[in-house]
Amino acid sequence: MSDTLKIGLLGHGTVGGAFDQLIADRAAAIRDATGKRAEISGVLTTSRGDFDEILGEADVIVELMGGTGAAREHVLAALNAGKPVITANKQLLAQHGAELFEAAERAGVQLRFEAAIAAVVPVVRVVQESFGAVEFTKVSGIVNGTTNFILTEMAATGASYEDVLARAQELGYAEADPTDDVNGADAAAKMAILARLAFHTPVTLDQVDFEGIESVQPDDLAYAKELGLSLKLLGVAERLPEGITVRVFPCFLYEGHPLSPIEGPFNAVTVEAPEITEVTMSGPGAGGLQTAAAVLGDLVSAVTGDAPTHSALKDLPVLTDVESSFYLHLEVADEPGVLAEVAKVLSDAGISVKSVVQRGIGDDARLVMVVHTCLEAKFKSAIDEIGRLAALRSSPRFIRVIEEEFV
Amino acid sequence: MSDTLKIGLLGHGTVGGAFDQLIADRAAAIRDATGKRAEISGVLTTSRGDFDEILGEADVIVELMGGTGAAREHVLAALNAGKPVITANKQLLAQHGAELFEAAERAGVQLRFEAAIAAVVPVVRVVQESFGAVEFTKVSGIVNGTTNFILTEMAATGASYEDVLARAQELGYAEADPTDDVNGADAAAKMAILARLAFHTPVTLDQVDFEGIESVQPDDLAYAKELGLSLKLLGVAERLPEGITVRVFPCFLYEGHPLSPIEGPFNAVTVEAPEITEVTMSGPGAGGLQTAAAVLGDLVSAVTGDAPTHSALKDLPVLTDVESSFYLHLEVADEPGVLAEVAKVLSDAGISVKSVVQRGIGDDARLVMVVHTCLEAKFKSAIDEIGRLAALRSSPRFIRVIEEEFV
Repeated sequence: MSDTLKIGLLGHGTVGGAFDQLIADRAAAIRDATGKRAEISGVLTTSRGDFDEILGEADVIVELMGGTGAAREHVLAALNAGKPVITANKQLLAQHGAELFEAAERAGVQLRFEAAIAAVVPVVRVVQESFGAVEFTKVSGIVNGTTNFILTEMAATGASYEDVLARAQELGYAEADPTDDVNGADAAAKMAILARLAFHTPVTLDQVDFEGIESVQPDDLAYAKELGLSLKLLGVAERLPEGITVRVFPCFLYEGHPLSPIEGPFNAVTVEAPEITEVTMSGPGAGGLQTAAAVLGDLVSAVTGDAPTHSALKDLPVLTDVESSFYLHLEVADEPGVLAEVAKVLSDAGISVKSVVQRGIGDDARLVMVVHTCLEAKFKSAIDEIGRLAALRSSPRFIRVIEEEFV
Repeated sequence: MSDTLKIGLLGHGTVGGAFDQLIADRAAAIRDATGKRAEISGVLTTSRGDFDEILGEADVIVELMGGTGAAREHVLAALNAGKPVITANKQLLAQHGAELFEAAERAGVQLRFEAAIAAVVPVVRVVQESFGAVEFTKVSGIVNGTTNFILTEMAATGASYEDVLARAQELGYAEADPTDDVNGADAAAKMAILARLAFHTPVTLDQVDFEGIESVQPDDLAYAKELGLSLKLLGVAERLPEGITVRVFPCFLYEGHPLSPIEGPFNAVTVEAPEITEVTMSGPGAGGLQTAAAVLGDLVSAVTGDAPTHSALKDLPVLTDVESSFYLHLEVADEPGVLAEVAKVLSDAGISVKSVVQRGIGDDARLVMVVHTCLEAKFKSAIDEIGRLAALRSSPRFIRVIEEEFV
């Protein structure tokens, strides 16, 4: 191959468009990782492009058109022509995986599909590569963000399934026709692919029992709370002595389960085996940009093959004085004016207080507060000043607080 | 290379011994993944083996001896001889990474080190390979299991740091000399390596500011609970407009933070970038077997290079009737004997009740229970019978419950 990496892009919808843009935005990083300049050499949509021309010119095919008709034919043609393929198409793999994997193996080229399971959550790579010689006992996953959003909202608000679904549609977390998400079919396709990877055994879509969340009642969630349970639509692929089982169903988890804290439109997968105990991966399971990022990761790997080298390409300065938020614990005399004195020192330093707990303990009191983000040097100098106040009974103690908002 | 993969093993302590055993136990899976029969062709310990002979015979060197003296010399010699190296040695990489990575690049061979950061939690692979062209903004990690165990116990029991440390030592979660764990030095070495990977910039150990958990007081944890915070020893590597910062410090997290639910002797790392939002990986961060499993994952990748193919090597039966635990929701008449009738049906079917909530609502009542694991067919037949009881006001509803115990 030359210095240019020519990408034939099939499909230019939400994910295809985001991928096209990402190739441009991350040009330098792609060059660092692969040694090549990536370029979209052709785009196929329903209204433009000729597949044969695109295939002839491309070094690699990226299939983001969806469906199982033309997508299947094009992916097979690309593999048979000896070109690696990256796809995000879960239905294609769940319905025609055996045929496609066989074509890839026969041609000795890569067929990569991280984005087909949980978008940017790196489940496929970890199962195949990190744990390539592990004999899994179980794979459990929240692999549909729409249903996890709906269940999280129902539990938080007590609203009905119908009301929350309507809200999810308004927010763009559910499609106009949400059938395949809410009835478990989407999760079933993903679990069929994951089960094949984990257990090296063919699993067809009709072998996956699935149930959806349509009949979940708000009072189920209320009772569950009393029993210490949270509700998820879970995919479970399990190896039992007699064979394997692959199912999707709404189910309750106890608090200690690694998938129990996964809320909102997120995906997460836990894999289990004796030698790894359990490993969990979580993150946004959908979104055009996030799915495109997973496709890009596959693209880089398809080109580099081996693990990247560890060149230190940049030489960024390593900084010391940075901003933090702080918890501050003061043992003070239980007398009027102490809070005012402390607050004045912080205010003079431009440090803003987020929350305070004050409590008397005999003659003493504890003044505990969290302050908003400020430069550490500024905070420490304010603390020195507070430490010199007459009302202080011992040196101030502080611990950093991460204030960052997560989805 | 021949049909045999000859492994030169340096070190035969807890991890080395577990790795040796794993190579034997997973022989078939390794052969499936690599096409080769793996064999430990030589072992170097302080009392046996000759390094030059071992190196001469080996296809790949696995360094599990620890330290930065002989380990550094042997790893350099192996790389210079063109042999791939797998290591779990964080101090070696944190102190001599630049030299070793350069040697690997010059020789064009792989130097892999997943086990050096968080054992079986696949942080290195995901940062390097899944997100090889992503420009990270932040990497946050709980990368020391000893301190996370101590902080979890302190928060749960209100006990002092000293008491909990003693308990951790008894349980084997802390070493006899826990200094490098509790003062943050161990986490600092790991964060230096992670920061280099994420930001492609050299980070030396003395550029990482670190603080430990030795001075955390039980009442800090009590106040934190009131403020909705949990305490972790966090490593944070961040890219700011002016450069990067790499630090380790105890800090409070709000409930929504993805690292907030990580409890006990576990590790977890969250990576952030605009195109991936945030992705979190978690699992056991230590343990001989788990560390050996991470080394084995690297070994398989070092041999196969490209992603494995997707052959369906097995053909396990896909089962349907499996065991589950269930939540059961019954709307019943509020009259004596209903619970007894329901309980008798379950008991006759050999189904054991774990917990019950009963509540009157006007003339009706709700009987909500969780039953222990049983075959689904058996449960469904019991439910049919319960549905025919005169006291039932509507059809029984049920949802599966995952009963599995996690660490």
